[in-house]
Amino acid sequence: MTTQQADGRINFDDLRSLLRNIFLNHGTSSIVADILAANCAGCERDGAISHGIFRIPGYVASLATGWVDGKAEPDVDRTSPSFIRIDARNGFAQPALAAGAEAVRTAVESAGIAIIAIRNSHHFSALWPDVEPFARDGLLALTFVNGLANVVPHGGHTAVYGTNPIAFATPVADAEPLVVDQATSVMANGEVRLHALANSPLPPGTGLDSAGRPSTDPHAILAGGALNTFGGYKGSSIALMVELMAGALTGGQLSFENDFGECVGAQTPKAGQLLMVIDPTRGGNAGFAQRVSLLCSRLIDAGQDRLPGQRRYASRLNAQRLGIPISQDNLFQLRTLAG
Amino acid sequence: MTTQQADGRINFDDLRSLLRNIFLNHGTSSIVADILAANCAGCERDGAISHGIFRIPGYVASLATGWVDGKAEPDVDRTSPSFIRIDARNGFAQPALAAGAEAVRTAVESAGIAIIAIRNSHHFSALWPDVEPFARDGLLALTFVNGLANVVPHGGHTAVYGTNPIAFATPVADAEPLVVDQATSVMANGEVRLHALANSPLPPGTGLDSAGRPSTDPHAILAGGALNTFGGYKGSSIALMVELMAGALTGGQLSFENDFGECVGAQTPKAGQLLMVIDPTRGGNAGFAQRVSLLCSRLIDAGQDRLPGQRRYASRLNAQRLGIPISQDNLFQLRTLAG
Repeated sequence: MTTQQADGRINFDDLRSLLRNIFLNHGTSSIVADILAANCAGCERDGAISHGIFRIPGYVASLATGWVDGKAEPDVDRTSPSFIRIDARNGFAQPALAAGAEAVRTAVESAGIAIIAIRNSHHFSALWPDVEPFARDGLLALTFVNGLANVVPHGGHTAVYGTNPIAFATPVADAEPLVVDQATSVMANGEVRLHALANSPLPPGTGLDSAGRPSTDPHAILAGGALNTFGGYKGSSIALMVELMAGALTGGQLSFENDFGECVGAQTPKAGQLLMVIDPTRGGNAGFAQRVSLLCSRLIDAGQDRLPGQRRYASRLNAQRLGIPISQDNLFQLRTLAG
Repeated sequence: MTTQQADGRINFDDLRSLLRNIFLNHGTSSIVADILAANCAGCERDGAISHGIFRIPGYVASLATGWVDGKAEPDVDRTSPSFIRIDARNGFAQPALAAGAEAVRTAVESAGIAIIAIRNSHHFSALWPDVEPFARDGLLALTFVNGLANVVPHGGHTAVYGTNPIAFATPVADAEPLVVDQATSVMANGEVRLHALANSPLPPGTGLDSAGRPSTDPHAILAGGALNTFGGYKGSSIALMVELMAGALTGGQLSFENDFGECVGAQTPKAGQLLMVIDPTRGGNAGFAQRVSLLCSRLIDAGQDRLPGQRRYASRLNAQRLGIPISQDNLFQLRTLAG
């Protein structure tokens, strides 16, 4: 998939069906196809295009080489009133999370908090789709995912971390949920790929080439180079926190342990995901959503130009009205992959 | 307390006793004096001087004006197998956390995770002393604290956030715990105060003056100005996460709700603290500390110059051997305050 100017529109259900057929055609189970198609179509709809159809060739390559198991059946183990461990069995993270949904609901009801530790999983999408639904149910959700080592620790010269994103979502009284989703690298890997496709240079400070020298060339960064963490040493510590929580605490792989071996062309990182879901009311804080609303108002009054997630909601609304923008070339490629 | 060249040494127990007498002499209970004295002496010992004896006048002023209650008895409520709510009753956060110690232990044993939500509390110290002890017990701890509004959201002109620090600590096989403690502002407030005392300018990008203009003058930032968040909009989102978790989720105050009113000179922020304690083994991950050790080795191999917390451990070791450096002037002032 490339980033040609969109010259057409497709509605969400049609795009989801098309993507579902692609996943099925490349060896996933029906339930995995359902979940990944809805996820990927949702990213495209919300304007999160670096995690939308642009990712389809990567999914397909990972499936085709056998690097990921598209039919994996996750193993869910509730080890305490609030602790849920899931072995994704080398499948995708989103179906593993879906398989734990009942256990999460039970844990939150009984303990006010659920911690979900997913290991042996591949996460190749945005994180906001994992947390936003919890906020719509009045819950606060926070998640960490590690990935492929392509980010250097601050002051270092070799990649150790993945882009190690963090996302959180919270209900807001009388408004859409507040949803933050950001890589702990200066730039998300998908954005670097979009720059490479467009042959456009990156801002200074984005990363290093394979010799460890600062570089603004997206091709150099993708060809054995690495990204910097955001925010200097403090951002590097946040990337460390994500690596610990998502990679080590889950019992998953650390980012630098990914080795595609003979699976040439595979792209999905095999890593871990940690998710925490908290019920604010269970902690005796019934006014939480109103307090968040007050905080949001104050941020806008203080001059912040928009709240996190607002651009996605605007794209979503537009797509619901007009359809999702898509180029004819991409549509043709998707139809070809769907068989 | 000022930052004169240290021209003497004091051992930890003597400094702790001296500080204990200061707290007692300014109206705290015996247990609060014990906890705050050990905490403050520990910061000075570990070279975290912006949270050491330098803070004593602030503690004393907050106590003297009645802004904080040095005799408050925290109210601990375990609302679920893993959810502990503590009302600090306008006292300090550290005694509140200590009061919850038994409930935390029970929660971690039964559920593998404890979430401790402290409200109506004053936190005027570093955060690493709150998390390091858990890591020594083999647990992972993560905490967030909000504070006095003196940090502008990215793109804004008015302070909304406190310096909103994050700390986490984790065991490392055959080594000291890995402990990160950092403000989500570009610089911690204590460091700005140290710059103001030394009349030394701040690096560009540190903050704004009271008119919302960029400033490198520490006095201008302290006199109605504000600090920036670290790491641009991404750091601002991390500050938001802390504000949500520590201020809103606990049922505490938001940073911008602090109003000293007639308590002129008081300095301790009245806010909230959220702490999560996780037992990695309870999640079926017995090899966790070894995995963290592997990650730490990889970071050093990748060129990171040191691990978070190492400077503190080096200072601690030095202080244990030689005593804690202290100027005669500061020692005299402390003795005067101790009565």
